[in-house]
Amino acid sequence: MTTTVPATTPSREGTPAEVSPARAREQFRDGLAVPSSGWAAGFTQANMVVLPMEWAFDMLLFAQRNPQPVPLLDVSDPGSFRTALAPDADLRTDLPRYRVWRDGELVDEPTDVAALWTDDLVTFLIGCSFSFEMALMDAGVPVRNVEQDRNVSMYRTNVDCRPAGRLSGPLVVSMRPIPASLVVTAVQVTSRMPDVHGAPVHIGSPSSLGIADLSRPDFGDALQIDEDDVPVFWACGVTPQAALMASKPPFAITHAPGHMFVTDVPDTVYRNL
Amino acid sequence: MTTTVPATTPSREGTPAEVSPARAREQFRDGLAVPSSGWAAGFTQANMVVLPMEWAFDMLLFAQRNPQPVPLLDVSDPGSFRTALAPDADLRTDLPRYRVWRDGELVDEPTDVAALWTDDLVTFLIGCSFSFEMALMDAGVPVRNVEQDRNVSMYRTNVDCRPAGRLSGPLVVSMRPIPASLVVTAVQVTSRMPDVHGAPVHIGSPSSLGIADLSRPDFGDALQIDEDDVPVFWACGVTPQAALMASKPPFAITHAPGHMFVTDVPDTVYRNL
Repeated sequence: MTTTVPATTPSREGTPAEVSPARAREQFRDGLAVPSSGWAAGFTQANMVVLPMEWAFDMLLFAQRNPQPVPLLDVSDPGSFRTALAPDADLRTDLPRYRVWRDGELVDEPTDVAALWTDDLVTFLIGCSFSFEMALMDAGVPVRNVEQDRNVSMYRTNVDCRPAGRLSGPLVVSMRPIPASLVVTAVQVTSRMPDVHGAPVHIGSPSSLGIADLSRPDFGDALQIDEDDVPVFWACGVTPQAALMASKPPFAITHAPGHMFVTDVPDTVYRNL
Repeated sequence: MTTTVPATTPSREGTPAEVSPARAREQFRDGLAVPSSGWAAGFTQANMVVLPMEWAFDMLLFAQRNPQPVPLLDVSDPGSFRTALAPDADLRTDLPRYRVWRDGELVDEPTDVAALWTDDLVTFLIGCSFSFEMALMDAGVPVRNVEQDRNVSMYRTNVDCRPAGRLSGPLVVSMRPIPASLVVTAVQVTSRMPDVHGAPVHIGSPSSLGIADLSRPDFGDALQIDEDDVPVFWACGVTPQAALMASKPPFAITHAPGHMFVTDVPDTVYRNL
């Protein structure tokens, strides 16, 4: 387990956007602990949640009942650290940074969880809005968080997810300010990508989601909002982490926010029709 | 538990197509044991699989890994015989006919399973192609099995589902002969309905799915195929029953083929975009 963080990416490989998914994972495996946004451009990145088998049915059911915040891309066999989304990857080492949870409390943020892995852990890989941001930009819709080089703004809402067994918690949303003239396009583009959160859950009126102040997100960064922008809200992959905090399973591992799993699957695979 | 089968539907309510979902379920609950095709027109019907909790994770994972044959519409809490798809329904009594399985063998086909229900049973409700047949007809695509008043033809294929724990089995497909000039329309219409099996899995060439003779289906009826028709294959909700036969859980309940659960959900809810 190394925590060395190289100052730069080896230049022979060009920018992080230009490296292959396998090479990105290799650098993260070697200890590079940076946000994965922009790495291996065009390839799907995934949120990760790992739980003991004893909680896995509840998590799988929570995903089935809440497909917009928890769109499952793959679920591993118990104990396995492999996934069909990237057959040569090792899920214990290949993310840039992890979070370790005990009884719903964050206890560590290591760059490697091999020493914590046991035979009864089940891994859930969940779609990520990075995939639809690329599709929005391709359709001419500006993505303010990318323009402003900030993390997207995320908020807990007053909407409860449908509970599943012992798992419950609030819907967490991400918000992107969209020019009013392009809101329809944004709905159309993301509706076609249900595996990566799909259509918005809400347009305008933050207060009706229980969000008092857009400039004070619960996760991520505040964004500058242009005068003609409308706040558009999508279900967010942080929702299962909020459920872990609320439901307190004895043990869980997740990715650290923004430090996603880079898969071998092109983003275009999740663009339907 | 009654097995009385009234000869006709009470005429004061018009045809079976005109009754409400609640009234359809009431008649099935009272013992009417007929195929549900055409009942409560415009409302979604669902396949049902019920398994002990000890097998429920495997089934949920099998569905996640095989979303085309096993598109989950709802999963009950353990022991519950209720579903969000029809809040006043009783899943133990409201289907026209059930099948009871022990160690992968069909042992009974009762019209009521209340006496078999235990606190650890988990119910899976799975989308059904009846929903997309209506959409095909609305788009001007003839549906031969409806025209010929027969059950659709279904075949075991040489394609294995992705296994999940102890559950594995072959992909089962339904086949509809589609006029060559309308195959593109059929793909487009059903692609927009992933919750009810979605796009075809195969067009033409039965032999490449291991189907030797279209006139000898493994389930359902043979269909007359017009000269200009192309055989189009969709993933089929019988797939989980084939997995039960192959994987032999100690106990399971399903609907009897064609005797589906009639929900309160309009078919149009599952037409995306």
